[in-house]
Amino acid sequence: MSENTIPLPVKLQRALVDIEETTGVPLAAGPFVVGVSGGADSLALLHALLSIVPAGQITVAHLDHGLRPESAAESVIIRDQAAAWGVAFVGGLAPVAELAAAAGQGIEEAGRQARYRFLAQVARERGAAVLTAHHADDQVETVLMHILRGSGLAGLRGMLPAGRLPEDPDIWLLRPLLGASRAEIEQYCRDHDLHPVEDASNRDTTYFRNRLRHDVIPLLETVSPQIGQHLQHLAATVTADYALLQQLSDVAMVDVTLDRGPGWILLDRTLWQGLPLSIRRSILRTAHRHCDPAGRDLGFASLEGARAAAEAPRSGQQAHLPGGVIVYVLPKELFLTADPSLLPVLAPQVGKPVALPVPGRVKLNEGWFVEATVVNARDARASRDFRDPWTAYVAVESQTPLLIRGRRRGERMQPLGMGGRHTSIKEIMIDRKIPAHLRQRWPVVVAGDQIVWLVGQVVDERFRAGETAARVVRLVCFQGDA
Amino acid sequence: MSENTIPLPVKLQRALVDIEETTGVPLAAGPFVVGVSGGADSLALLHALLSIVPAGQITVAHLDHGLRPESAAESVIIRDQAAAWGVAFVGGLAPVAELAAAAGQGIEEAGRQARYRFLAQVARERGAAVLTAHHADDQVETVLMHILRGSGLAGLRGMLPAGRLPEDPDIWLLRPLLGASRAEIEQYCRDHDLHPVEDASNRDTTYFRNRLRHDVIPLLETVSPQIGQHLQHLAATVTADYALLQQLSDVAMVDVTLDRGPGWILLDRTLWQGLPLSIRRSILRTAHRHCDPAGRDLGFASLEGARAAAEAPRSGQQAHLPGGVIVYVLPKELFLTADPSLLPVLAPQVGKPVALPVPGRVKLNEGWFVEATVVNARDARASRDFRDPWTAYVAVESQTPLLIRGRRRGERMQPLGMGGRHTSIKEIMIDRKIPAHLRQRWPVVVAGDQIVWLVGQVVDERFRAGETAARVVRLVCFQGDA
Repeated sequence: MSENTIPLPVKLQRALVDIEETTGVPLAAGPFVVGVSGGADSLALLHALLSIVPAGQITVAHLDHGLRPESAAESVIIRDQAAAWGVAFVGGLAPVAELAAAAGQGIEEAGRQARYRFLAQVARERGAAVLTAHHADDQVETVLMHILRGSGLAGLRGMLPAGRLPEDPDIWLLRPLLGASRAEIEQYCRDHDLHPVEDASNRDTTYFRNRLRHDVIPLLETVSPQIGQHLQHLAATVTADYALLQQLSDVAMVDVTLDRGPGWILLDRTLWQGLPLSIRRSILRTAHRHCDPAGRDLGFASLEGARAAAEAPRSGQQAHLPGGVIVYVLPKELFLTADPSLLPVLAPQVGKPVALPVPGRVKLNEGWFVEATVVNARDARASRDFRDPWTAYVAVESQTPLLIRGRRRGERMQPLGMGGRHTSIKEIMIDRKIPAHLRQRWPVVVAGDQIVWLVGQVVDERFRAGETAARVVRLVCFQGDA
Repeated sequence: MSENTIPLPVKLQRALVDIEETTGVPLAAGPFVVGVSGGADSLALLHALLSIVPAGQITVAHLDHGLRPESAAESVIIRDQAAAWGVAFVGGLAPVAELAAAAGQGIEEAGRQARYRFLAQVARERGAAVLTAHHADDQVETVLMHILRGSGLAGLRGMLPAGRLPEDPDIWLLRPLLGASRAEIEQYCRDHDLHPVEDASNRDTTYFRNRLRHDVIPLLETVSPQIGQHLQHLAATVTADYALLQQLSDVAMVDVTLDRGPGWILLDRTLWQGLPLSIRRSILRTAHRHCDPAGRDLGFASLEGARAAAEAPRSGQQAHLPGGVIVYVLPKELFLTADPSLLPVLAPQVGKPVALPVPGRVKLNEGWFVEATVVNARDARASRDFRDPWTAYVAVESQTPLLIRGRRRGERMQPLGMGGRHTSIKEIMIDRKIPAHLRQRWPVVVAGDQIVWLVGQVVDERFRAGETAARVVRLVCFQGDA
């Protein structure tokens, strides 16, 4: 039996079973919310669905876009049809033209968003999966659109038979008619005396899709009559290839991620460089997406620019990605962030313990210094009000040597102004959002076993430069050429 | 500096260094055989190459296709140009029209084959790599052609910067101008006063490419002006993705291959079923290629048909692939072959040792039987001339019980007609090309510790049914319903 002679309800049933097997989630028996525009495809989907699951499992959701004078009457027809078939109906009205104007969007994009918001709401209330009637010809257009607009494997997959609603990732979005052609669906409507209230071929009026449907695909069919089938097969092939690559990339991502937080991520550059090119690219994409919540498309040119910088023998380069994300190429790490203040080269770090002479200066990493100066108490009092966290005034007697080093495991201090309470340095660092990868080598100034200053953060109560201090030392941490 | 303002020789140099890094083979410094048609692209390639490597490293190879009256004069111009630049020249003349007629090919295909054979020959003599002048616009056409004609990832890669000549896999075929556009190349020719002898845009006159160049691509550019760049980027992305998937698939292929020989392969079905979909498909493709040396394209529909059969809960199905390759779905294996006589279900196999009564019959696997009958010596002598290997006449006394079992480790016999020489059963099996996966359970008829008959292959000298035999037993191994 050829693909095209399989009855639509059988195809639908098989697609739902396939979806259930692929996702491992019991989705084949409903409950379903079917998005019904009133076009041939959604009407056929609803009718075929009724022949394989009980009407009680189905809710028709119809959103009136209010764009055409006849749309209200069409909504009534759909409501009556649902009632005649014993199916629940939820209607909605969205002022799409106003929404588009308010958001500065195109009508089609605003309509699409309103429609999916509406479907998400109806499905959420019912704990149902959303079904749409996208079919094989829609799929061909989608794949072709991605090819023409530029895409990697992700786009070549086309629409997936099962995914999540972008508007609510808890809700499944199923497209069980992707294996059926527009011609098949229209024939099904004729065979079952179904009367679409809207001409489906005019429904999607975006310029791009219309050009594809009316100019591009007909021309491509003259050079390759099977182009539609080829693109469907390509989508099916690539879906599996992409899934495997994504799985590998996810595993590798865990391996190379040293640390991450909102808007930034630190990758092990050495490890990353040892991965296959496909995975190196994929990790940069994922890292960019992590840093740019708006999810701008990375694009091939900027991806390759970042990769070239990250693979260069010398560190110190930067690459700029969409969304203001910067890739800082460090000797052993890649740091991506849209917020340069989080950059580790802009944070002080200390290696081996080093003596801090008073007066004197100690060089840390990347042009960072700590400078110690003896000041008179009056200067100290006057300056203290600036509250620059990178300057500290401390009371240290002249016979007490100072040292700069990293924290020790379990080390504690008595933060100024907290009544002498002992607090672990680790807790203070977490509290002050020092990224984990910077904590180990974050400089602390110590006198013997006692913390004097957690640099840039907090002075210890025991070294408070009070009114009666015999000797006040000003500690300044700064980055510069000095 | 934008991509398009990088001088052609710099691009060429970078591409050669990239190729060297990617392949790990020292290819960047030559020696090179440059295929020169006399068109703008090959002339520019030759000229740019001369500015980065010594002329002594370069040989110009030009094949006169003898299709146009002016071609002989063009060959002379190219030879003179090569001489003027101090570059070795090898000319050839191929009667392409006659070759095409003889092979029943199109002129273009015959020309392409003759050209690559010629290039292979010139390169082989010089231990050189072949360079062709395929450029970015050629690449765009190639990728688009693969998309339109139906392709998975392999085709979407387009032409590779470095590969092997199909006509001689020992010779490298390099395409270092894939990153340069036709416009750039033509500009380079104008800037350096190079005079192509042939209009490159008319060179490739295949119907399909011409349709792409003159109809399809211009239309696509009206809907997506950057389509050319998008397709180049797609090819670059997919090349890396494909390489990784192929690497995974190669590793998995080794794991699932139980045995293989010319024209057949036996796969571990259980293991195969546990692999990701992408790899399952890839392994079927590789297995098909192994069985069909002509390398017919598998095609998505037949691939999916074979996969469905192979994944079905019940074994026993068959799927038919191009090139006459059949996939036999066995309980724990997949057997692919274009020669059904190699099918293991058509070969006898024995499990536990089992007594063979005389007269009597023993059932083996899959409808195979061994039958023992006492015959008179005259019948034996008369029948022996048929030399059916599946029938044996042996001298066995009536008090000697017979047993059927598999071979034992290190077991030996004295094959009939070899003067009583002891030979290991393993060696006989290898010599007689019994596939390794069938050897362990290949039935042998034994009397005590002595081999009587290696079924279907050879009788033991000690049980020869000679003139004086007291009792002759006919052993027949056959497959049937009995």
